[in-house]
Amino acid sequence: MSQTAINPNPNAPLDALDFFRNSAGTWRSQRVTHHLAFRRAEVGESTIRVEMLDNSDPRIAEICAMHAIDPAQAAGGAHIAWKGLMEWDKADENHEGQSVMVIVPDPDAPGSGQLLRERGYAETAPVAGRYHIDNDNGMVLTTEYETMSSTERFWFPSGNLRMRTSTLQRFGGYNTATFCTEVRVSEDGNVPQAAPDTAPAATPIYSALGW
Amino acid sequence: MSQTAINPNPNAPLDALDFFRNSAGTWRSQRVTHHLAFRRAEVGESTIRVEMLDNSDPRIAEICAMHAIDPAQAAGGAHIAWKGLMEWDKADENHEGQSVMVIVPDPDAPGSGQLLRERGYAETAPVAGRYHIDNDNGMVLTTEYETMSSTERFWFPSGNLRMRTSTLQRFGGYNTATFCTEVRVSEDGNVPQAAPDTAPAATPIYSALGW
Repeated sequence: MSQTAINPNPNAPLDALDFFRNSAGTWRSQRVTHHLAFRRAEVGESTIRVEMLDNSDPRIAEICAMHAIDPAQAAGGAHIAWKGLMEWDKADENHEGQSVMVIVPDPDAPGSGQLLRERGYAETAPVAGRYHIDNDNGMVLTTEYETMSSTERFWFPSGNLRMRTSTLQRFGGYNTATFCTEVRVSEDGNVPQAAPDTAPAATPIYSALGW
Repeated sequence: MSQTAINPNPNAPLDALDFFRNSAGTWRSQRVTHHLAFRRAEVGESTIRVEMLDNSDPRIAEICAMHAIDPAQAAGGAHIAWKGLMEWDKADENHEGQSVMVIVPDPDAPGSGQLLRERGYAETAPVAGRYHIDNDNGMVLTTEYETMSSTERFWFPSGNLRMRTSTLQRFGGYNTATFCTEVRVSEDGNVPQAAPDTAPAATPIYSALGW
């Protein structure tokens, strides 16, 4: 599997399929969830593997059928598998799962559309979210559930570094905010040479603003 | 001090001064820094107080003079004070500081411009960054230093909730990624009624995507 960034020019406009293409491979994900009401930060680490699916893959047609959408409208999809361990899991329970996602661009606006899935993390029914690409090449995904809604933003500072934030609202109030920093690794879990610089900062720096 | 959101309509376009206006007040900030090479997450909490300065404030003219910019070009500024404690400070050293910032919009494009400061967190010289407002009402700020550059994005999911991410590059490689979740509090540090919902999720949910 190539470790090369597929979109080496960060200024070129992306579409949602580019996001999946650029996500293809194996990632080591560092995550934090801020529980807003409880003033707690929950950190965790996981491994994520993303594999592109082309339109001939039967899983694409299957998910489109769940959502009553013509598979010819799909731009492509991805199979995503993750495995992680969260700090609060006293019983050392593994968080592991997989999902198939399908991109259905809006016919008149290819920078936005629907993201179809079999099911959400805490739902049993098929789930569809709305995405759009913002003018900084971030992909923003909003998903409405029965009792909550989520807003996620994904972006690539470089071809081997992916970031995302997500906020969850329940009953109109914000519950949690999550941030993931994801470094591309080789399939055996090692960080390749192209990974972030290892030179430590001379002084600890958290924000250029200082606060 | 009013706890009311100044821009209650999240769909209205903002400018940089709106960001400062919406930031005015006292915030409880939960922060995480991901050290990419070391696979460490460093969490912390701080209190931030932001006070608007109008153009008649002598500090505005002073900072403009440091940068050789006509103070008439400034749209306004802010005084920011922060106090925090980071997990890695074994000696319980307090991180405390303050800074004055001045917004100088581009004459032909008010959604972008310069953000002037006395000095950066780790610099002794005056610092100027470039900002622009993206089409999701996020403010993106890039700052070039002698040996590093930072990219920060600020956004308001609601009037009482502010978030920001920042990435630091040194010698062309990414060092750290920081995420802050900031909840507006009263001056005595209590979270007001308008703060995020306290209803806990029935099941732990980290991302609507599940990964």
